[in-house]
Amino acid sequence: MPSFKTFYSEEPPEGYSSSLGVDYVIVYKVPEAEVEQAEAAYVQLIKQLTSIGLATEVRESEPGTLLIFVKVASGQLFANQVYRARLTDWLHGVRTTAPSQELSESLRQERVTPAERLRLVYRMLVKPRNEGGAGITPKIGVWRYVDSLFPLHNHSLNRRWLQRFSTTYLLDPSDLDEIRDELGEGVAYYFEFIQTYFRFLIAPAALGLGAWLLLGQFSWIYAAACSVWSVVFFEYWKQKEVDLAVRWGTRGVSLIQSDRAEFVFDREDIDPVTGELVKVYPPLKRFGTQLLQIPFALACVVVLGGLIVMCNSLEIFINEVYDGPFKQYLGLLPTILLSGLTPTFSAVLTAVATKLNKMENYRTEEAYQAALIQKEFVLNFMTSYMAAFFTSFVYTPFGHVITPFLTFWHRIARMITMGNFQIKAHEFHVNPRRISDQMFFFTVTAQIVNLATEIVVPYLKRKVFKTVKEFKHEKEMSPVEGEDDKFIARVMAEYELDVYDVNVDYREMVIQYGYLSLFSVAWPLAACCFLVNNWIELRSDTLKIAVGSRRPIPWRTDSIGPWVEALGFLSWLGSITSAAIVYLCSNSLGAVEAGVSMNSTGGLASDEILEKPLVRAAQVQHSADFTAWGLLLVIFLAEHLYLAMQFLVRSVMSNLDSPGLQKVRKERFQMKKRMLLATSNADSSMMANQDGVPGIEESERIIRRELNKDMDRAEMRGQAIPEEVFWHKHQTMAETIDAGRIIIAQVGNKAGKAMPSPKAE
Amino acid sequence: MPSFKTFYSEEPPEGYSSSLGVDYVIVYKVPEAEVEQAEAAYVQLIKQLTSIGLATEVRESEPGTLLIFVKVASGQLFANQVYRARLTDWLHGVRTTAPSQELSESLRQERVTPAERLRLVYRMLVKPRNEGGAGITPKIGVWRYVDSLFPLHNHSLNRRWLQRFSTTYLLDPSDLDEIRDELGEGVAYYFEFIQTYFRFLIAPAALGLGAWLLLGQFSWIYAAACSVWSVVFFEYWKQKEVDLAVRWGTRGVSLIQSDRAEFVFDREDIDPVTGELVKVYPPLKRFGTQLLQIPFALACVVVLGGLIVMCNSLEIFINEVYDGPFKQYLGLLPTILLSGLTPTFSAVLTAVATKLNKMENYRTEEAYQAALIQKEFVLNFMTSYMAAFFTSFVYTPFGHVITPFLTFWHRIARMITMGNFQIKAHEFHVNPRRISDQMFFFTVTAQIVNLATEIVVPYLKRKVFKTVKEFKHEKEMSPVEGEDDKFIARVMAEYELDVYDVNVDYREMVIQYGYLSLFSVAWPLAACCFLVNNWIELRSDTLKIAVGSRRPIPWRTDSIGPWVEALGFLSWLGSITSAAIVYLCSNSLGAVEAGVSMNSTGGLASDEILEKPLVRAAQVQHSADFTAWGLLLVIFLAEHLYLAMQFLVRSVMSNLDSPGLQKVRKERFQMKKRMLLATSNADSSMMANQDGVPGIEESERIIRRELNKDMDRAEMRGQAIPEEVFWHKHQTMAETIDAGRIIIAQVGNKAGKAMPSPKAE
Repeated sequence: MPSFKTFYSEEPPEGYSSSLGVDYVIVYKVPEAEVEQAEAAYVQLIKQLTSIGLATEVRESEPGTLLIFVKVASGQLFANQVYRARLTDWLHGVRTTAPSQELSESLRQERVTPAERLRLVYRMLVKPRNEGGAGITPKIGVWRYVDSLFPLHNHSLNRRWLQRFSTTYLLDPSDLDEIRDELGEGVAYYFEFIQTYFRFLIAPAALGLGAWLLLGQFSWIYAAACSVWSVVFFEYWKQKEVDLAVRWGTRGVSLIQSDRAEFVFDREDIDPVTGELVKVYPPLKRFGTQLLQIPFALACVVVLGGLIVMCNSLEIFINEVYDGPFKQYLGLLPTILLSGLTPTFSAVLTAVATKLNKMENYRTEEAYQAALIQKEFVLNFMTSYMAAFFTSFVYTPFGHVITPFLTFWHRIARMITMGNFQIKAHEFHVNPRRISDQMFFFTVTAQIVNLATEIVVPYLKRKVFKTVKEFKHEKEMSPVEGEDDKFIARVMAEYELDVYDVNVDYREMVIQYGYLSLFSVAWPLAACCFLVNNWIELRSDTLKIAVGSRRPIPWRTDSIGPWVEALGFLSWLGSITSAAIVYLCSNSLGAVEAGVSMNSTGGLASDEILEKPLVRAAQVQHSADFTAWGLLLVIFLAEHLYLAMQFLVRSVMSNLDSPGLQKVRKERFQMKKRMLLATSNADSSMMANQDGVPGIEESERIIRRELNKDMDRAEMRGQAIPEEVFWHKHQTMAETIDAGRIIIAQVGNKAGKAMPSPKAE
Repeated sequence: MPSFKTFYSEEPPEGYSSSLGVDYVIVYKVPEAEVEQAEAAYVQLIKQLTSIGLATEVRESEPGTLLIFVKVASGQLFANQVYRARLTDWLHGVRTTAPSQELSESLRQERVTPAERLRLVYRMLVKPRNEGGAGITPKIGVWRYVDSLFPLHNHSLNRRWLQRFSTTYLLDPSDLDEIRDELGEGVAYYFEFIQTYFRFLIAPAALGLGAWLLLGQFSWIYAAACSVWSVVFFEYWKQKEVDLAVRWGTRGVSLIQSDRAEFVFDREDIDPVTGELVKVYPPLKRFGTQLLQIPFALACVVVLGGLIVMCNSLEIFINEVYDGPFKQYLGLLPTILLSGLTPTFSAVLTAVATKLNKMENYRTEEAYQAALIQKEFVLNFMTSYMAAFFTSFVYTPFGHVITPFLTFWHRIARMITMGNFQIKAHEFHVNPRRISDQMFFFTVTAQIVNLATEIVVPYLKRKVFKTVKEFKHEKEMSPVEGEDDKFIARVMAEYELDVYDVNVDYREMVIQYGYLSLFSVAWPLAACCFLVNNWIELRSDTLKIAVGSRRPIPWRTDSIGPWVEALGFLSWLGSITSAAIVYLCSNSLGAVEAGVSMNSTGGLASDEILEKPLVRAAQVQHSADFTAWGLLLVIFLAEHLYLAMQFLVRSVMSNLDSPGLQKVRKERFQMKKRMLLATSNADSSMMANQDGVPGIEESERIIRRELNKDMDRAEMRGQAIPEEVFWHKHQTMAETIDAGRIIIAQVGNKAGKAMPSPKAE
């Protein structure tokens, strides 16, 4: 792996400057016990690759590991693939216009980007054999020796990005187009999202700074402004998403879905749309399985909620009540417990969620992923926000409800120390700064830790791993020989990197957005910290993709997927929590400052001594300056103001034309206009002029001809039907005009007559 | 006008059996003072009509009134119009497939329905001259003598409908298709809506009957079930709407909008989509005007709310407190006041709303209408529901708040009667049956009155009007002569009918739906009454269209327009009001029954005597068995359960494929598939087989050719670049396979060696 430094040196290290035309690398692992099967499968693999028109090369990297290099053999052959893929897109409605019928013309009009190339080659590699692919499914079935397949980084471009992004304030659209051309729309969407979010953050950051300086914590004004901001941001992004999809030509691509290999079907049926045979699993049966999510969510609440309550109350006990031996060390205990148990519990719950998701048996990879992301989001939501929920909705307003827990810890402490400890002599306050301390932790400490985990830890891990490996191999094997050693070493270095998953980055941003929306009213500086963090985040994510991960397979997408729903949910919930926090905490802040205290009698503690003041404190707290109906009213009003604001912003934005949708409409209109013109020429033989209007003379001629036909028919019949008689009273336009004139003139005559002699009436 | 009876006789009356091929009738009124101008305009009108290919006839009906009959002169000419209109639809995306290029083929595939014919002729009549129409704008400008233009009824079909509908329980799809073919999608949508609503009503009717028998008023179970029902109905209808649009080929037709003649533009601009010059009015400027709706809505609340409170409290005073002279007559006073003042006030407010709507300056007729309907809906909402809101949210739970009003009426009464009246000697109760009495009034009495106003009153009005007219004309003129007297008389009879507005019928249904959703929990039998009412309503609406109105111009539509939003709003609000009514009223019912009473001392009343017991009653009431936080909690829970239910129903329904959308997808797919096949033939010259896969031999040949080219280039250059060297290590597939086999074999050898002698490690 190249060190960070190499990206800023003038020349790339040897083996990194060019990928030698390699499109994909297949890592093939031969286990010592299955040499024969592995050999047969290897031969089959090479033949399979050749048969679909891919050139192959093979090298050994380390014993038992073969690197199979794949590239597209012929430009002509690949052009054909590109053309077919674009036609299929058009067939699925992703493109508004069909690609030009002339192959070379089509490629000239729209060049093949590296991302498109890699995506199509990937499709060739994995698509089933009956659809013209090699059907490679790494680690499964006959391909169980195929460890992985991945494209190689373009290091000179990566270096240029890192240099450019670290010296500019904002990425411009051409940067994003470049990311899209190289890494695909999936990654480009993420960069556009973080960039848009970063730009939008300036408003709450300024607002938060102002609020912090002038209004302090728990300000109504900040809460309202932040809520409006979140509505505008959310609606803006939804429109932006569509615009991007149009700009990048991927609109509707999420409707093209690929089947999951694990999908189990109940029966096969004719697809009413395409007429092909499709596998069917009844949606209502799946819905039945999905209902299991309800007990699962409840279990999550109990497990993670219990953990949070336990650790938080223990921490409060140790910091605020306990005054026995090892106090300074015990203070760290809750944090250690929490940091140790949360990942453990959430790993177990994630495993259950994955299991549930598998049981829901989605037909397509995309639906499966979206459902999994949703479940993980619920878990992340709980692990991330539950502590803050506890502090703002339980600890700060209703300090007394933790009394039983404090008593519990008190008993435990007494049991362990055999009663040999003291409780604090000074007063016990509900600490109103606890929520801001927590927010500071989440917004600053946690973000720094996270950055470290993302970049530094994997780097160190690889360093150590590599050293161990080199040490291990040193005695065992002779170093790889040949002229392309350095290239092989580089490929192996890229192979050892993590697989990049853009959802991990989205999750981080969405959870951050949640802190802003849900709790920033407790610490308005949050947005400032996020602003700084996200400037770094965008660069560190670039670094992570360029240096810390294998080159991602360039997926296409037309949105940020289920994350947009998560954003909407957090904005909505934020309107409620912000209002509730302001109402509860700004009041109880006053109550606390008025001095709800717990005096210890000092000396040896007994249950009675601890419990009584706590109960008293609880009673005092309970009469603090807020009421249940006040809280409910505040929540009700805040939520409905939020919904009304959303309705307003949506209707205003739907009136402003989005450039993306305009482009689509224009393309559609022009395509059809062309066809309309072509058709118009076909019926130019008709007597109608451009508007289909015959004009008076022509029309008179036609009308008279038609009427004459009627007359002819009537004569042949020997009598006229009422309709013929009716329309023949006046046979020409002139006659009709004269008849009308006579009638009108009578009106005039009568009026003339009537006026001089009113008695005629 | 034919009497109701004639529709059931075997033979239609003379003049009614055939429309003599007339497409439209233009009624032309010549005022005595402007004979010359009218004559000139008449000549221009006939010329104009002739020039666009319409045949005309003229007759006099009564002095000063000309009937100009218009029909399409030539089938060929009209076929051209039909074809152009269909192409334009396709251009606007209403049709998925372009009409067949062969004109006669296109008309054969898809016949021209009477509705399509009348719609196109109407378009020809009113479309501006520069777009190939006659540009007739009745009552405006040069066409100010054109009183109206309308098509003629198909009486034999109307008679058949009335016979059929009055003998069947439900209309089947072919009936609706027939309505659509004859009267256009606008009317057909209404019939489908009322039919769907009628079918859905069976559930709450059964439920309501059950609740009324077993659970009584104010049942939680009924409220919850009704809320679920409203969600399902609303979501079902939204899907049905799309299906219908697909079935009738009008999907997206609401996007084709016609310019309003009154639209004032700020500037002209190039349309970015079509490239044509369009008139622009900035949406934000309009939004500024739209903000005036807020004070307007407040004014409505004050005016109509004040009226309701005044009349209701007066009624309560007279019925429950007052016991003086004329009590039996005074009891009617509030109802008379309310029935007299509500229409007056709402007429004034409607006028203001229309004025506001004009100020908002919408570019298109459709946007103007939708905005006007919304404003009128707000007014209707207030006039319809405010009384019930007052009773359920003020009178029943908080009887005491009306004390000041009762005192006010008491003073007035004393002033008028000079203190000469008594107040009741018996106890004063808040009447818990008041809400059910009101609901009975709204659901039964009002619906019957409404039916009468819709059908009977216009009928009588016309009868009287006609008699007066006949009496007046008798002396003045000789009776019309000629062979087509009866036809002219029939046309004049149709001319004298009302213009049918489908929105009036929608309003009635939506307001009814509102009673069901908002208040039926107070009187669960409401749905039963509505079920009966709506069976009659559908038939009476048929009668209204067939006998009581001119034939409507067959507009197209792809939805029920803004009414669907009104339905959604009422469903949502219903979840809140139902829960609140149950909570408030079921509790206060108990409180009232426990006996909150007001004893009069009898004899001459004084303010003190009246006021004191009222205040006491108020205090007792206030401690009734409900709390503000309880109410808020109930509302909060009910609303969120409703929203969750909506989310659930939506996600389930989005998984069930709708037949309409499937049809669209299928058409699109097949259209494109045809084009794809056509394109595939074009590139059949390429060596790829059907899937674009060359096969092993072909691929080997291509790969070797490409590699050889590289080599040739390298030789010419004199040295090979690294890429060429890399890919030439193994030049054929066989070599690559062998190379891999050797590497794999080494793994086997080593394993073989390693296993017997582990110390070699």
